[in-house]
Amino acid sequence: MVIIMNTEATQQNINDVIEVIKGVGLEAKIMEGAQQKIVGVIGDKTKLASVPIDAMPGVEHSVAISKSYKLASREFHPQSSVINVSGILIGGDEPIVMAGPCAVESREQLLQSAEIIKAGGAQFLRGGAYKPRTSPYSFQGLEEEGLKYLAEAREKTGLKIVTEVTTVEAIEKVAKYADMLQIGARNMQNFGLLKEVGKCGKPVLLKRGLAATLDEWLNAAEYIMNEGNPNVVFCERGIRTYETYTRNTLDMSAIAAIKHLSHLPIIVDPSHGTGKWRMVKPMALAAIAAGADGLMMEVHPNPAKALSDGSQSLTPEHYQDVMNAVKKLSKFIKEENLLSEIEE
Amino acid sequence: MVIIMNTEATQQNINDVIEVIKGVGLEAKIMEGAQQKIVGVIGDKTKLASVPIDAMPGVEHSVAISKSYKLASREFHPQSSVINVSGILIGGDEPIVMAGPCAVESREQLLQSAEIIKAGGAQFLRGGAYKPRTSPYSFQGLEEEGLKYLAEAREKTGLKIVTEVTTVEAIEKVAKYADMLQIGARNMQNFGLLKEVGKCGKPVLLKRGLAATLDEWLNAAEYIMNEGNPNVVFCERGIRTYETYTRNTLDMSAIAAIKHLSHLPIIVDPSHGTGKWRMVKPMALAAIAAGADGLMMEVHPNPAKALSDGSQSLTPEHYQDVMNAVKKLSKFIKEENLLSEIEE
Amino acid sequence: MVIIMNTEATQQNINDVIEVIKGVGLEAKIMEGAQQKIVGVIGDKTKLASVPIDAMPGVEHSVAISKSYKLASREFHPQSSVINVSGILIGGDEPIVMAGPCAVESREQLLQSAEIIKAGGAQFLRGGAYKPRTSPYSFQGLEEEGLKYLAEAREKTGLKIVTEVTTVEAIEKVAKYADMLQIGARNMQNFGLLKEVGKCGKPVLLKRGLAATLDEWLNAAEYIMNEGNPNVVFCERGIRTYETYTRNTLDMSAIAAIKHLSHLPIIVDPSHGTGKWRMVKPMALAAIAAGADGLMMEVHPNPAKALSDGSQSLTPEHYQDVMNAVKKLSKFIKEENLLSEIEE
Amino acid sequence: MVIIMNTEATQQNINDVIEVIKGVGLEAKIMEGAQQKIVGVIGDKTKLASVPIDAMPGVEHSVAISKSYKLASREFHPQSSVINVSGILIGGDEPIVMAGPCAVESREQLLQSAEIIKAGGAQFLRGGAYKPRTSPYSFQGLEEEGLKYLAEAREKTGLKIVTEVTTVEAIEKVAKYADMLQIGARNMQNFGLLKEVGKCGKPVLLKRGLAATLDEWLNAAEYIMNEGNPNVVFCERGIRTYETYTRNTLDMSAIAAIKHLSHLPIIVDPSHGTGKWRMVKPMALAAIAAGADGLMMEVHPNPAKALSDGSQSLTPEHYQDVMNAVKKLSKFIKEENLLSEIEE
Repeated sequence: MVIIMNTEATQQNINDVIEVIKGVGLEAKIMEGAQQKIVGVIGDKTKLASVPIDAMPGVEHSVAISKSYKLASREFHPQSSVINVSGILIGGDEPIVMAGPCAVESREQLLQSAEIIKAGGAQFLRGGAYKPRTSPYSFQGLEEEGLKYLAEAREKTGLKIVTEVTTVEAIEKVAKYADMLQIGARNMQNFGLLKEVGKCGKPVLLKRGLAATLDEWLNAAEYIMNEGNPNVVFCERGIRTYETYTRNTLDMSAIAAIKHLSHLPIIVDPSHGTGKWRMVKPMALAAIAAGADGLMMEVHPNPAKALSDGSQSLTPEHYQDVMNAVKKLSKFIKEENLLSEIEE
Repeated sequence: MVIIMNTEATQQNINDVIEVIKGVGLEAKIMEGAQQKIVGVIGDKTKLASVPIDAMPGVEHSVAISKSYKLASREFHPQSSVINVSGILIGGDEPIVMAGPCAVESREQLLQSAEIIKAGGAQFLRGGAYKPRTSPYSFQGLEEEGLKYLAEAREKTGLKIVTEVTTVEAIEKVAKYADMLQIGARNMQNFGLLKEVGKCGKPVLLKRGLAATLDEWLNAAEYIMNEGNPNVVFCERGIRTYETYTRNTLDMSAIAAIKHLSHLPIIVDPSHGTGKWRMVKPMALAAIAAGADGLMMEVHPNPAKALSDGSQSLTPEHYQDVMNAVKKLSKFIKEENLLSEIEE
Repeated sequence: MVIIMNTEATQQNINDVIEVIKGVGLEAKIMEGAQQKIVGVIGDKTKLASVPIDAMPGVEHSVAISKSYKLASREFHPQSSVINVSGILIGGDEPIVMAGPCAVESREQLLQSAEIIKAGGAQFLRGGAYKPRTSPYSFQGLEEEGLKYLAEAREKTGLKIVTEVTTVEAIEKVAKYADMLQIGARNMQNFGLLKEVGKCGKPVLLKRGLAATLDEWLNAAEYIMNEGNPNVVFCERGIRTYETYTRNTLDMSAIAAIKHLSHLPIIVDPSHGTGKWRMVKPMALAAIAAGADGLMMEVHPNPAKALSDGSQSLTPEHYQDVMNAVKKLSKFIKEENLLSEIEE
Repeated sequence: MVIIMNTEATQQNINDVIEVIKGVGLEAKIMEGAQQKIVGVIGDKTKLASVPIDAMPGVEHSVAISKSYKLASREFHPQSSVINVSGILIGGDEPIVMAGPCAVESREQLLQSAEIIKAGGAQFLRGGAYKPRTSPYSFQGLEEEGLKYLAEAREKTGLKIVTEVTTVEAIEKVAKYADMLQIGARNMQNFGLLKEVGKCGKPVLLKRGLAATLDEWLNAAEYIMNEGNPNVVFCERGIRTYETYTRNTLDMSAIAAIKHLSHLPIIVDPSHGTGKWRMVKPMALAAIAAGADGLMMEVHPNPAKALSDGSQSLTPEHYQDVMNAVKKLSKFIKEENLLSEIEE
């Protein structure tokens, strides 16, 4: 942390700041310029998390320098992590695809979806049994009944199950049926929920919050990992911007950023990220080319009859087309080693 | 809802759309232009919440026209609501002030704060016992111990208590000690929590989400009200934008917008809204001048030693100064009837 | 500037950074922590503007500490400036109001507007003769003809004229007729235009860019002042955010921020800031209560027939009502000294 | 356009709205619901550009349905355009790469850069002679001297020249030396400049504004095309969001959006889009995989000595590495026809 004193700061002000820093066991260094003095802080930043330096007399503002997360950080864990979910490796040699309807609507719809997903070559079936919806009058999900259909679909197809958990009370139930728990965008900073999925131990798919910074996202992972659960996979699903043509703005650069800042895998959801099924194919290919460890896509046997998010769902035919292209592309990129970094 | 067909839509496409609309019991009307056809939908929009019109062949996109919330809407409840919290009226004749430290840190700090708050003339003591923090290593709150100090402060000063509840499990405990439950920005779309505070019945202070639209905010209130709890007060606390000088961008126009769209009261939090204590006074006065029903402000006996958000906390002297100015201003505005609307 | 080295930086990397800093005549100081080294730079930051420290081997990133503008900065000019525009003082004892139609549409419309504006008590008549419009097919303004009507209105009413200049070629013409030149939001970083209005010497009303940071805005003023023109007045007119209910999000905190960072006056435009005439009154009062030096408002003799921005224009009756309230409020705030700051 | 009347609208209000619509030669259709009436407008929307329907009594708000641009629209020009720039085809069979330093700094630096760019296989040399900079104290470019070096580099290497023009006065000069004129992000709505580059006739590279919507961007192209210049190429260079880790947020979905909405080509600038050279390779590959018609990249013989934007510039070695990967990837995508759309 670097503390910038304002131009009217007195020597007493500076001494007070130094005393506070020393008080938490850290070291302070002063730099004096013609018009401004700066105090540098050396040591473990977490000790400073609760000290309101900015409010002290003579302080203009302070700038954080080190990161507040550790377990999720590549700095402390240089090698990339591979997350094993019921035998499927995420972050390994090939991209993993999670596909399925936005919501589990009925046994028939889900089993039909599962056959389509399996045939297309994805490894995971997705589908919400608990749906967070903006309006209380929208379809809220089939809850445990939906979970049972998911488990039945796994039995029939061998697909792994990833599904969202929205409340602490539901964790146990969801964990019983699913292979991987999804934390949705609206719950990325529901810290009580993060801690409990951390304790539960099941692998977690952590979607980026609607307007979350990378730093907040990494700290959300830290909440889960700090409870003893290292099996976290990030999922970029678009952020909120001023642009209204797309449902969200898919932040493709988050792939490269997360790979630089963290050792954990990251997948991309072009369905929620754009809100338009026509954009799913080009964005899926872009994600793979940028180095994503996988994809999450919405597929519906009959999008025009979907109970939620139909406009972003692929038909079975389009899904198959995207899968074919994704497989070819990722194979080529791997063989040609296109994403390798050259020596600096 | 209005559905815009694309230029290549066939008559069959249009017929299919109309059939779907009629299928949920609504009426459809077609408008034909030279290049484009439009289908208008008449009736209760909630019936359409689960119909993915946008995914149907020939549809370019659709535009929502009516609102998805009702209980919170002024359209269905033209008269402004006054919320009674343990005898204090929010939305009534004078602005209500909620003040206190960001977090309850100790018995001494809280009781000292309460004396200051009481002396300044606020009606509510605020202070977090459960703190949602970006990093798991930051101070997380004193939990039930903090609630007890709050209750003790109420006994000593007569101030009402408003404090945040972050998990469903904690609702019962918080409701036992507090007069009003606060839903924080990060939980504005924690729908499970919203439903449970709705069932609990205690008055709720609903902070705007970090990047929530007015529509999402109003729908969040609808979740609470739909469970039978009509006692909701909005709190504008700044939204996330590209500007980094302030912690958030305080959306002052939300006061006028909420007053137009809803019958519920709205207060403003200039401390979180700006992140800088120097800005609290001008923004507090602005909020009152714009018609806010009250304020929430952070005050700390010694901001430079606060365990969280010290840089935005007022000292006791500044708090007293803001209160004096706010009282004079609101009295003047009321006497002069400055905010009255003239006949159109 | 503070330079944060990454954890793998070698001593050679650090030496190279120090050499570059010394090379432009600045001083470097090193702080060594357990895991990280930081290099502080002392001296005039403008010397570093062209040095890409961030690209040097071993550098994680750098953080700017001092500001890049000087002439606009309060740090170098502690006393507030009062700008004299043809005898009207902006930043002085009373708020200045600039009102009128969005665009000059006809001689009749403008002269009628001017009478209304004069009667209401504003000091300036506004009205665009050159209109920047998103679509090339929208009304683009009457150009010089419009300027002549503005000058005629001034002669008849004594109101001062403020009007937008959008191209370097038009500066001379606009300066011939107007008392103050307006730089619109879309041109805030049209640096060629800024330099030329700087040379021209006429007082300038500098609107904030659609998505400009405070720092960029202050630097835009610096461009004008650096050409020898100190007569710059800021105008906050709303920024672009994700919220779509209002046309822009009026950043009321910019008033307090600009007053802290700069000695120049700032006024507020609640018409463009909200896009809704109903919101103009509460936002105008809020701006005055927050300490704004004035207001810019759209008024039209018949908003429903305006050729642009009719939905945000006040009728003559509403304008008169806003003016009455604004005058009472500003008089009261001044008399009671409500915005004074107490000793720290 | 669809006009939504509020719940208190009278029959007279509706009649007035209809009269206004008919007054500009358009047709109106009414839809009556239980609580709300809607008026649909049929015909050419440009006739309505200057009618402030939203300000009329009884109107809640209006919703635009058709687009305000035509020449740039795919609707009116279904076949993709290929832009010929001095013999190089943009939008044709292979992606076009424009590379070079951010700014022309010296003859030596530029000629050295040109050799590197040529050797790597790009078709265009980029480099700014006129630099728009936030601070007036930053390096502003070599102006005509820089243009001469660019022309000399073309002679030596055969590379085509693309360079930014920032003022109307400079157009003639820049057009004399360059093959393609670049409109930078800050000037995307400098309408005077757009019109003049439209008249000038040279091909134009139109960068997206800092916070421009797709609609505004397409309308900016319309300004150029409306003056008779059909040779416009879009360049996505990142938009401003709340995220600060990257310099901008590269909106990869803009590629698919522009291809759907317009017939014009689009290229991507991952250097400005991310602000970090490490992200250029993955984002370049992503852009190609998403269907971009080309790339713009910053390359500097010695990034650590660049006078601007060094931290986002590739070294010659990294540039060569990116080019190799891009060429392999685009060849593979074309051969395998990966981006083809299946029949619906």
